[in-house]
Amino acid sequence: MLTYNLENRGKIPLYDYLYRCIRDDILSGNIKAGDKLPSKRTLAKHLNVSIVTIENAYAQLSLEGYIEPVEKSGYFVMKLEHTEKASCMIKQAVDEEEFEYSFFADLRSNRIRRNNFPFSTWARLLRDTVSSHNEMLLKTVPYNGIYELRLALAEFLHEYRGMNVQPSQIIIGSGTEYLYSRLIRLLGRDSIWAVESTGNQKITGIYNMYNASWKYVSGDEYGLSPNVLNKSGCNVLHVSPANHFPTGTVMPVKRRQELLSWAMQEDSRYILEDDYDSEFRYSGAAIAPLYSMDNSGKVIYMNTFSKTLIPSLRISYMVLPPSLMERYKEELSFYSGTVSSIEQYTLARFISEGYFERHLNHMRNYYKNIRNSFINAIKASPLNDISTIEEANSGTYFLLKLNTSLPDDTIATRTKAADIDVATMSEYIISGSNDTHTIIINYCGVHMERIEETVRRLTKAICEST
Amino acid sequence: MLTYNLENRGKIPLYDYLYRCIRDDILSGNIKAGDKLPSKRTLAKHLNVSIVTIENAYAQLSLEGYIEPVEKSGYFVMKLEHTEKASCMIKQAVDEEEFEYSFFADLRSNRIRRNNFPFSTWARLLRDTVSSHNEMLLKTVPYNGIYELRLALAEFLHEYRGMNVQPSQIIIGSGTEYLYSRLIRLLGRDSIWAVESTGNQKITGIYNMYNASWKYVSGDEYGLSPNVLNKSGCNVLHVSPANHFPTGTVMPVKRRQELLSWAMQEDSRYILEDDYDSEFRYSGAAIAPLYSMDNSGKVIYMNTFSKTLIPSLRISYMVLPPSLMERYKEELSFYSGTVSSIEQYTLARFISEGYFERHLNHMRNYYKNIRNSFINAIKASPLNDISTIEEANSGTYFLLKLNTSLPDDTIATRTKAADIDVATMSEYIISGSNDTHTIIINYCGVHMERIEETVRRLTKAICEST
Repeated sequence: MLTYNLENRGKIPLYDYLYRCIRDDILSGNIKAGDKLPSKRTLAKHLNVSIVTIENAYAQLSLEGYIEPVEKSGYFVMKLEHTEKASCMIKQAVDEEEFEYSFFADLRSNRIRRNNFPFSTWARLLRDTVSSHNEMLLKTVPYNGIYELRLALAEFLHEYRGMNVQPSQIIIGSGTEYLYSRLIRLLGRDSIWAVESTGNQKITGIYNMYNASWKYVSGDEYGLSPNVLNKSGCNVLHVSPANHFPTGTVMPVKRRQELLSWAMQEDSRYILEDDYDSEFRYSGAAIAPLYSMDNSGKVIYMNTFSKTLIPSLRISYMVLPPSLMERYKEELSFYSGTVSSIEQYTLARFISEGYFERHLNHMRNYYKNIRNSFINAIKASPLNDISTIEEANSGTYFLLKLNTSLPDDTIATRTKAADIDVATMSEYIISGSNDTHTIIINYCGVHMERIEETVRRLTKAICEST
Repeated sequence: MLTYNLENRGKIPLYDYLYRCIRDDILSGNIKAGDKLPSKRTLAKHLNVSIVTIENAYAQLSLEGYIEPVEKSGYFVMKLEHTEKASCMIKQAVDEEEFEYSFFADLRSNRIRRNNFPFSTWARLLRDTVSSHNEMLLKTVPYNGIYELRLALAEFLHEYRGMNVQPSQIIIGSGTEYLYSRLIRLLGRDSIWAVESTGNQKITGIYNMYNASWKYVSGDEYGLSPNVLNKSGCNVLHVSPANHFPTGTVMPVKRRQELLSWAMQEDSRYILEDDYDSEFRYSGAAIAPLYSMDNSGKVIYMNTFSKTLIPSLRISYMVLPPSLMERYKEELSFYSGTVSSIEQYTLARFISEGYFERHLNHMRNYYKNIRNSFINAIKASPLNDISTIEEANSGTYFLLKLNTSLPDDTIATRTKAADIDVATMSEYIISGSNDTHTIIINYCGVHMERIEETVRRLTKAICEST
C-alpha cells in the first residue's frame, strides 16, 4: 500500500502533495506500469485523509497522463519511461551573486554619482502616475511608446535642439541597442553600415549580433567624408556631429552639408545621428543637430536617458523621417513596446513640467566643476609637465595627451595596478596603433574628494621610470 | 548691417538666439559666402547688446564652421550650400493622437480590468525602491537582470512550479518578443523552428522579423509528435504543455517524455516551454512544467508578467539550461539589460513578500467567477441549444462550439456588427479551414455587468436566420 509522510509538505495543499508523491514514484519506477492504484476509499483510510483528497490527487494524475481510469475497475499506471529525477520537493541550494570589483577611481564607465538624481521628485511622479493613470496602465504598451512621452519629447527637441518633430515620428525603446536592432531590421539586409575606424567599437558588436554588414571607414579631422564613403560602398552612416567620441570633434557645417548631399544621391542612403552627450557642453550654446539641417528625410536621430538621468532607467528614443516611419509602422509595429508605461508617463511629466531641464542644468554645472577640479589638480601636479589637456568642452571626459615613451598597454597596466580604471585612446582606434600616448579621462562617476589622490596615482603610474 | 528683433526669443539666451539668426541668414544666402561680419563692437552697439553677447554668438558660429576668423581682419562667412529650411525658431504644429475604437465587449484581447491590480501596493513598493536602492539605481542594468529579482523568481518557481532553478540561469527581458529575439540569435541561423499549425500564428511574425527559419508542423490530439518532428527536420520546438492555446489541451506525461527523448537525440535540439497562462487553472493543481522533468538540459522555460500583473509592465523571463546559459554569457551578455532596475527591484519585493501569490489567488477567483457567470448566462440563453462549451478549466478563455452552418468568417462579421470583438478558431488554424464553427471567448477583460447583454448580442448574431 502507498505510504507517504504528509506532514512536511509546507504550504502545498494535501491533495497536491499526495499527487506529487505518487507521480515521483511512478516516474522512478517504484510504482510499476500497469499497476492498479488502491481504491480511493482504501487509500483515504490508510493515509487518514478524506476521500476528496484522494479523488483530487487521482484526477490530477489522470489529467497529466500518469494514470488512466478504467471504468468500474479503478485507476491503472500508464507505461512511461523511468527517470531518476530527484523529487521537486527537495529544497534547492541557491547560488550567490558574483562579486563586482570596484576601483579606487573609475575613469571609464558612465556611472552617475548619488546626489545627482532627483530621486524624491522621481518617486513622487511615479506614485502620481500609478494613481492617476490606472486605466491606461491596464493597456498594452503601443509599439512606438505612449503618446504623452512622445509629445513631451517633440516639444523638448523643438525647444532645446531646434528640431521640428511630430510625436508620430518618435519611437521609444528600452535602450539604444534595442532601437539599433530595429533600425538594422528596418534598413534591411542589403544595407552596409559604415563604422568609423576611430570611435566606439562596441557598435560593431551590435551589428554582428544582428547579422548586419558593416565596414571600417577612416575619417579625416572632420569625421567621415563623402569620398571615402563613396569608395566604401556603405549606405548607412553612424555619426555624432555634436560630439564625436572619443576625439570630441564638432563636425563643421560644411561637412554636414556634404554628408547630407551624399545621402540624397541614393534612396537607400541614411545617416544615423547619435546625439549622445550633446547635452553636456560647457562653453557656448548646444551644437545644433544634423537632423535640423535635413530637408530630405535622410537623418535618423537617436538619443538616450541613460546618461542624462540614470543608467538603470532603460529609455532611449529615435526620430524617424516620415517616410521611414511609414515603413516602420508597416513592417515593425507588430509587437508591444518594450518600456513600461509607468516609467513612460513618469518621464513625460518629468520633461513637460520642467524637471528635466533643471536637472540638465544642474548636471552641466556639476560636471563643469568636476572637470575644472580635475584639470586644476593635474595642473598642480608633476603630470602637468608631461601632458596636454584636449577636448575638454563637451561630454563628461577630456583627453590627456602624455609626453611619454610608454606604449598604451603599459600605461593601462600601470594605471590598473594603481587601482585606477582608465581607457587609452588606442582602445578606440582599430588600425592597431599602440602609441597614442593618450588617456581618456571620463570624470562622470568620480568622487570629488578622490580627485587629488587619483591624480597623484596617475602621476606615479605614468612618470615612474619613464 | 545685421538687424534682428531680439525680443521674441522666449527662454533662449541672447547670444544663442543671435547665433541662430545669423546662422539661418547664412544658410538661406541672405548673408553671402566671403562676406565679412560686422566687428563685435559695431554690432553690439547696433543691436544694443553687450560685446560679450556678440563674442559668444561669433564663437559658436565659428565652432560649427559657419564663419572663419581671420587674424587681425575679422570674421568671414564660409562657402556653404544654401538651404530653404524654415527657421527652427518657428513654433511647430503638433499632430494628434489616433483615436482607438472600443468595442461593447472585447472577447479577444488580454486586457486586465481596473480593480484587479493592487496599484497602491505597487506604488508603495516603487517609492520604497527609489528611496532604499539609490546606490543600485545609479548602475547599469546587468544583461541578465538584477540578482534580487532572479533570486525571487528562482524561489517562486521552486515553490509554485516545482522547478529547480538557480538565479544564474534566469534572464530578465522587456517582453517575450525580446527574449525570443535573443533565443533565435543564441540557437543560431542553422536552427529550424517548428510551429504548430494550430496555435498562435503571431509567433511566425517574430521568426520572420529575426530571419529565423521555421516550418509548420501538424500535431495530433496530444500536440506535436516526435515522428512528425523527425520528418520535418526542425530542431527547436515551441510548446505550452500546461495549456495549449487555443485548444486548451494538457500534454500527457507520455508525450512529454517522448519529446524529451526526441530532444536528447541531437545536440542542437531544444524545446522552448512557454508557460503562459499556466497560473490560471480552475480545478485541480497547477500542471507541472516540462522543465521539471528534464534531466538533460534540453528545456528552455519562458514566462511573462503581462497577464499575471498588468500588460504595461514589460517584464518577461526565461530559464536556460546551464550549458546554454554559458553560451549566452559568452555571446550575448555584451549589452545592458532592457528592464528598468526600479521595476525589477519592485517586482522582486512584490514576489518575495507574498503579494504576487495573493494577487494570483485573487485573479484565479476573479476569473473563475467571470467564467462561471459567462457560462451561466450562455446556459440561460437560446445559445445553449446550439452550442457546447469546451476547455473551460484553464487560461482566461473557453471554446464555444456552435451547431451552425455559418462559416467562421460570417460569424466574425456578424459578431463585429453586434459590436463584439471575438476570435474564431479558424484564425488559429493555418490549413485554411473556415468551418470550425467555434469561437474563442476570452473573458479576461469583460465587464461583469455586460455579460448578459454580450450573450444576448452573441445569440442574436449567431442564431439569426441560421
